[in-house]
Amino acid sequence: HSHIKPESFGQKDIAEYAKGLKYNDKGLLVAIAQDVDTGDILMQAFANAEAVEATLRTGLGTFYSRSRDSLWCKGETSGHFLKVKRVFCDCDRDSLIYLCKPIGPACHTGEPTCWFEGTGEGAGGEDTIEVVNEMPRTTLQMLEETIRAREVDDEGGVGKSWTAKLLGDTDLLCSKVREEAGELCETLEKAEGKERAASEMADLLYHSMVLMRKQDVDMVQVMEVLRERFGVSGIDEKAARSKL
Amino acid sequence: HSHIKPESFGQKDIAEYAKGLKYNDKGLLVAIAQDVDTGDILMQAFANAEAVEATLRTGLGTFYSRSRDSLWCKGETSGHFLKVKRVFCDCDRDSLIYLCKPIGPACHTGEPTCWFEGTGEGAGGEDTIEVVNEMPRTTLQMLEETIRAREVDDEGGVGKSWTAKLLGDTDLLCSKVREEAGELCETLEKAEGKERAASEMADLLYHSMVLMRKQDVDMVQVMEVLRERFGVSGIDEKAARSKL
Ligand SMILES: [Zn+2]
Ligand SMILES: [Zn+2]
Ligand SMILES: [Zn+2]
Ligand SMILES: [Zn+2]
Ligand SMILES: [Zn+2]
Ligand SMILES: [Zn+2]
Ligand SMILES: [Zn+2]
Ligand SMILES: [Zn+2]
Ligand SMILES: [Zn+2]
Repeated sequence: HSHIKPESFGQKDIAEYAKGLKYNDKGLLVAIAQDVDTGDILMQAFANAEAVEATLRTGLGTFYSRSRDSLWCKGETSGHFLKVKRVFCDCDRDSLIYLCKPIGPACHTGEPTCWFEGTGEGAGGEDTIEVVNEMPRTTLQMLEETIRAREVDDEGGVGKSWTAKLLGDTDLLCSKVREEAGELCETLEKAEGKERAASEMADLLYHSMVLMRKQDVDMVQVMEVLRERFGVSGIDEKAARSKL
Repeated sequence: HSHIKPESFGQKDIAEYAKGLKYNDKGLLVAIAQDVDTGDILMQAFANAEAVEATLRTGLGTFYSRSRDSLWCKGETSGHFLKVKRVFCDCDRDSLIYLCKPIGPACHTGEPTCWFEGTGEGAGGEDTIEVVNEMPRTTLQMLEETIRAREVDDEGGVGKSWTAKLLGDTDLLCSKVREEAGELCETLEKAEGKERAASEMADLLYHSMVLMRKQDVDMVQVMEVLRERFGVSGIDEKAARSKL
């Protein structure tokens, strides 16, 4: 990558790495905590060099509190720590991502993340927008949420959607999951092309996620299994190893 | 939600909504662009009230450029726009998420996102950390990357891993996908419990993602299919409708 200075890479002294980032006139940069399993942006605060250094040493998301004028290890009072796996800096080195696993809700309000007010998809004219109590949802999360919402209809009864029908009929649901797996395999066996493969993978994902909902298992639990199985280690695990 | 003021919700005038956010002494707040399909944090810049208003009116991610002292619609020169679906503000209203679909790379360097330098999982003592050229990866992306990496071994030949074996044997791969779908169904049919269900869903996801790799289809393409199918509309689509 020609735009990357090779001297940036390799083994670095933690204090020097932290000092080498770009801070504003108040000695701060933007630090964004992101959930490694869900991709959720959990919270955003500011960090000084000391906070970045502490994060890298301890594996716990640490910021600078402007109101208290001191380092702030998120969770030190609530117990809701951010276990930081890896830290990333942006192209001009003034904005960090703490890629982490949150322990408990990330927001002091008790919400899972700090973003729970958004503009909706409502009608609205050109000058107005609907503001709703919702969190940012990626496509997979939106699908999970849609499946959950369709479990019941508007009156709280059994929904009339295809999703509700699947949730109410184990034989139908399982036969669909097996059928969709077969259809996905056929895209390869019969060389049906990429578009058809993406479409059948979408079918299989949707139906298997209905099967997960039926068993009250969230996709984040599946991600945790995958992460452990495929070994995404991080700062905290390294710290643990160094104690052995 | 007791911590949310109900007057925050409902149909709002766009200009008043933008003015009601919390700006710093320079009239700015943090704006974070996130990819609706992948969850990737794409870029982070600052926005003033005018930029927020422009984003909500046009559906294109707009910021305030401190160097040029003017509004900056990302993509206006490169064509790499951010098509914003929805905007979210955090609990103290000084940090926004632009949930969007990027057109082309988000970073001016040509990288997909601005974060391509991170601390690795390397050994390292207590005072050093390895810095590598990698992007933040959520668990699903890490799995996709791992599958891709195992396609070839260190010498560029056919890998010796289970993944490489599956990629080289269509019969084996398809029989595994069908078998794992069956095992996932059995967790429901035989009431094997949540832990087993999560584990079998992980098996099915992994094997079906190998099948996608074999056909050179990325998971983001699957997410696009799901998004269109389950109708995540947004500002841009609303703007399009208002032109009909
Ligand atoms: Zn590059
Ligand atoms: Zn930056
Ligand atoms: Zn918060
Ligand atoms: Zn079918
Ligand atoms: Zn199908
Ligand atoms: Zn709440
Ligand atoms: Zn805030
Ligand atoms: Zn950049
Ligand atoms: Zn299995």
